Amino acid sequence: MTRLDTASIRAARQWIDPTFLDTPLYRCEGLEPDLGCAVSIKLETANPVRSFKARGTEIVASSLAGNGSSAVVCASAGNLGQALAWSGRGRGLDVTVVASRFAPAVKLERIRALDAKLELVDGDIEAARDRAAAIARRDGIRLVEDSLDLETCEGAATIGLELVDAAPPFDVVLIALGGGAMATGVGHVLKDCAPGVEVVCVQPLGAPAMTHSWHQRRVVTTDSTETIADGVAGRYPIPAVLDDLLLVADDAVLVKEASIIAGMRLLLDRAGLVVEPSAALGVAAILENRERFAGRHVVTIVCGSNVDPADYRRWVD
Amino acid sequence: MTRLDTASIRAARQWIDPTFLDTPLYRCEGLEPDLGCAVSIKLETANPVRSFKARGTEIVASSLAGNGSSAVVCASAGNLGQALAWSGRGRGLDVTVVASRFAPAVKLERIRALDAKLELVDGDIEAARDRAAAIARRDGIRLVEDSLDLETCEGAATIGLELVDAAPPFDVVLIALGGGAMATGVGHVLKDCAPGVEVVCVQPLGAPAMTHSWHQRRVVTTDSTETIADGVAGRYPIPAVLDDLLLVADDAVLVKEASIIAGMRLLLDRAGLVVEPSAALGVAAILENRERFAGRHVVTIVCGSNVDPADYRRWVD
Repeated sequence: MTRLDTASIRAARQWIDPTFLDTPLYRCEGLEPDLGCAVSIKLETANPVRSFKARGTEIVASSLAGNGSSAVVCASAGNLGQALAWSGRGRGLDVTVVASRFAPAVKLERIRALDAKLELVDGDIEAARDRAAAIARRDGIRLVEDSLDLETCEGAATIGLELVDAAPPFDVVLIALGGGAMATGVGHVLKDCAPGVEVVCVQPLGAPAMTHSWHQRRVVTTDSTETIADGVAGRYPIPAVLDDLLLVADDAVLVKEASIIAGMRLLLDRAGLVVEPSAALGVAAILENRERFAGRHVVTIVCGSNVDPADYRRWVD
Repeated sequence: MTRLDTASIRAARQWIDPTFLDTPLYRCEGLEPDLGCAVSIKLETANPVRSFKARGTEIVASSLAGNGSSAVVCASAGNLGQALAWSGRGRGLDVTVVASRFAPAVKLERIRALDAKLELVDGDIEAARDRAAAIARRDGIRLVEDSLDLETCEGAATIGLELVDAAPPFDVVLIALGGGAMATGVGHVLKDCAPGVEVVCVQPLGAPAMTHSWHQRRVVTTDSTETIADGVAGRYPIPAVLDDLLLVADDAVLVKEASIIAGMRLLLDRAGLVVEPSAALGVAAILENRERFAGRHVVTIVCGSNVDPADYRRWVD
């Protein structure tokens, strides 16, 4: 049993602004000659924060506003912070986001533009997590911990509900793996409602902590990360999240940076989609193992599109 | 009274595959500093044919399949052809598309990939229209005439229903103007259900026939077109469509090629959206007249994303 419950996930939809729900799910035949399998896209970028993260922050912020809280803090690689800023602004919450100063400038700009207080740390996301926890203790306010806090997993899990409710004849769902909120959330719903569907998590070779942990069935940390997929570049997997992932993932695979870039290029040229590196992980996994997916119907969740324009052009040109 | 009827448009939704309906409508604050107004996007590109055109072809093909027809032909700049090919394939119809050999290669490829018979003419879309009509007469099959045939307008009009049903507090809707199906369809619903909303049609300076016709209240043709916005480059406005447009459009404006390119670049860099030139017309109109839209809430319909990758890179780089 994971920490999640499908009925609770379904109930949580009511707290999420409809602009983030019922996102496009469609067959993308333009990609298929290159990928050798049937491909459907679940598109999480056509919303005010350009990622799936607001599904979770809407639940958090609704709950906080409902119990009279006035402030909240999170650490973020950039997308959670934007989403919490958006959700908090609409409910009168003071939002503080702690991020690495090495995060993509566009993500930091958008967090500020959404009226959040942005605090930068010199280290990576793990340093930001420490700092956010310290702020929460100091100020006595709610700390939102991505993947650990159930609302973040339940929010992501509503993507899974939309997949099973649409009931297309898919065989595999590819999910970007970072902290694990999306993988455990979507994975839980699939295993509960569509157990025949294979749940495959995809992480960069340069940020493999959770994937190594899943294979070894114990928390494995790394000293550093080296990937353009900034959204999934954690080093310290959370034990409770790993426990859930062990119950719902059928596999976890690692992909090369070159495959991530090839995936971004393919999604641009054959699907007309701008994606950030983390959102190309699924296509990268197919490119690295076409035989595994040949003849099957694969859903890939395009989870974010927040890229710095100059970086993006360099990657896809 | 236009040729359209809102109740019929609402009824027509039942014939359209849900993958084309209820498309994203969302506020895009990332664009706002550059545009000086509140901007919402109605996104018509996240579907199997990457344009809004299937809303209409679904109605056509459902009707044909229902009355036992087995074949259909249309002229197309590329997007209608893809959409009719998709809608016809799913219903066992033989689809013939006539297009200019100068249409974007990616549009022609996709029409072929969707199992349609593609016939190329040496001239432009007007030559393709003549040829399609000849094929229909020769073979005794249904000719789909974009903008003239009510189903094409009703299909596009379902976008208008989704706008008024969502009831965001918008003041203006910007609509790409080509043959007029989208402008008259969406315009009809807005004038019927939300008469306070301004309906502004946007066409390239290099393909101004319908805009000149609207301003002069009579059909004005041109000898040639000169625009990258291939989807809206007609020369011979259809009288019945112009009559409808005169009833529902509050204005029709022309924009420069440089503004279309600037619009495409802005949508890429600030919204993460790949759009074909026709889909950037609305943003181009704002860029050319920021004062007109300042402080207002503008919806722009992003109507297609079928671009040749090499052309697209040249435009946005």
